[in-house]
Amino acid sequence: MYVLKKITEAELRKVQATIKRELASEKIIQEIYEYIFNVEGKKTRALLCLLASKSSEIKTNNRINLASIIELLHTATLVHDDVVDESELRRGTRSVNQVWTNSYSVLMGDFIYSKAFILMVQLGIPSVLDELAKATNDIARGEIIQLGLFEKKQMIDIKDLLKVSYLKTGRLFEASAKTGAMLACKSEEEVKTFGLLGKALGTAFQIQDDILDYEAFKLDTGKPTLKDFKEGKITFPLYFALQQANTKDKNFIMSKLGQSKILVKDQKKIYQLIQNDKAQKQINSLLEKYTKEALRHLQKLKHHDCYDEMLNLITASKIRKK
Amino acid sequence: MYVLKKITEAELRKVQATIKRELASEKIIQEIYEYIFNVEGKKTRALLCLLASKSSEIKTNNRINLASIIELLHTATLVHDDVVDESELRRGTRSVNQVWTNSYSVLMGDFIYSKAFILMVQLGIPSVLDELAKATNDIARGEIIQLGLFEKKQMIDIKDLLKVSYLKTGRLFEASAKTGAMLACKSEEEVKTFGLLGKALGTAFQIQDDILDYEAFKLDTGKPTLKDFKEGKITFPLYFALQQANTKDKNFIMSKLGQSKILVKDQKKIYQLIQNDKAQKQINSLLEKYTKEALRHLQKLKHHDCYDEMLNLITASKIRKK
Repeated sequence: MYVLKKITEAELRKVQATIKRELASEKIIQEIYEYIFNVEGKKTRALLCLLASKSSEIKTNNRINLASIIELLHTATLVHDDVVDESELRRGTRSVNQVWTNSYSVLMGDFIYSKAFILMVQLGIPSVLDELAKATNDIARGEIIQLGLFEKKQMIDIKDLLKVSYLKTGRLFEASAKTGAMLACKSEEEVKTFGLLGKALGTAFQIQDDILDYEAFKLDTGKPTLKDFKEGKITFPLYFALQQANTKDKNFIMSKLGQSKILVKDQKKIYQLIQNDKAQKQINSLLEKYTKEALRHLQKLKHHDCYDEMLNLITASKIRKK
Repeated sequence: MYVLKKITEAELRKVQATIKRELASEKIIQEIYEYIFNVEGKKTRALLCLLASKSSEIKTNNRINLASIIELLHTATLVHDDVVDESELRRGTRSVNQVWTNSYSVLMGDFIYSKAFILMVQLGIPSVLDELAKATNDIARGEIIQLGLFEKKQMIDIKDLLKVSYLKTGRLFEASAKTGAMLACKSEEEVKTFGLLGKALGTAFQIQDDILDYEAFKLDTGKPTLKDFKEGKITFPLYFALQQANTKDKNFIMSKLGQSKILVKDQKKIYQLIQNDKAQKQINSLLEKYTKEALRHLQKLKHHDCYDEMLNLITASKIRKK
């Protein structure tokens, strides 16, 4: 879906191969690994890191390894998220906790996390280690805060939503771009710019993810329908829809939120409320805001090899359908 | 329960204070943290690390930090284990997954793991980072192998049991002693000896843990009765009892293994089968073997400050009742 140079595509394939090699210790681990990674993701974070680390002076191997580490960290959070969300599907396929058990998901997540840390130590760059350890901690913190928010449904604030989407998603995007730039020994100022670009892109990415969760109702994205809603999550689209809804509709939404089974006619009504004109304008303008912010930071990096591909990554993220 | 010098006791209290300080970011995290750490454990791994790192040339602060990191890693595995084992109690108190939910346990475990890695990076010793990242990975691997073993109950071999108890328990004891010695800049030979001592002590510790799980039937250890058995785990005492049991008793044991509710009269019968003279001799001689191995390695460290306390730690571990 992203327009990439042949060399970048080849690098992404090497990331996949590295991950496969690193997880091949025990038979059961290999089985679960193959199950997780056969369901290939977009590898947006790995790509962001590969682009930020482009430099003729840096060994490609180290760049592949760093991008693999980031993809491993992301995968570990996905595997654990499936336990947290009690997911039945991941990327359109049954999730690990469904094919095996929650126990395997918890332990496999730990296995992948620690494998990523082993590779980080081997890479041997203290600033990269520091950034990724902190990002991993922030992701867990974001998820814990999110769990707390679900419990007090009504009182959610846009600030809370932005904080959680930064910690859950923006933070690893930020770290992917920053550590890529660190690896390529870019200046402190540039490392900062890459970080800000990643942070804005990650937030835009999360907003689009939230939108797609509702769009899945009419599109076939491989995701189950209204997944976030059924899990009781107030995401950006629902937040804006609630702002616009009258008391009756608001009560209707809140009465259905978090129910695992919702009648199709009720799902249609929820979808219609999400489609409210004003709410749609608000969500689109929020997405636009963060996309523009990412592009603004990119302008400072015009002289970089990665410029064209990064530009495409940012614009494609906004219009992606999966 | 361990006979310690006043200075070591003070250091262990500082470990507790460090952990508390490091986990005090969000309110919900602080609440869960206080719940976990108010149920104070023995901190055997932290103690092992403090003893191995004793040296007049090393800053006490760094030793406290390393011991805290190890205790955090251990705690993260406990919090995740409770999800894996579907535990209702931990150290005699309701476990996190019972008071909050599995979701909180998974995320809190991730939060604690990554906090430990942040502190490791701050400590800034590559060999320590490498050892602890690998140990964390081995622990997860051991747990995954153990899950697989439960599924094929009948075919368990003593070699499998030893491998799993090394990975699950011995490995972090080994890393605690090794990294302590590394921090204190001990010679390569001595680091190796400390590691072997830790590994043997950890295995002895696990054997004693397995014994205590059955002893809980008559003693009050704060653990629920026959916990391992009800979770379907074949541990060392059960392995030896099965070796000695006749076909009828063997079938009886296998029919009850993994059942969450077992009649008291059946529990009594299981306990009696565990008490088989020959099986008892075998389990005690296995425990003796690993304790002696730990003591043998300790003999090479006679000139160290930690000798007396380490000697007590090894002998106390064997006779501990909790």
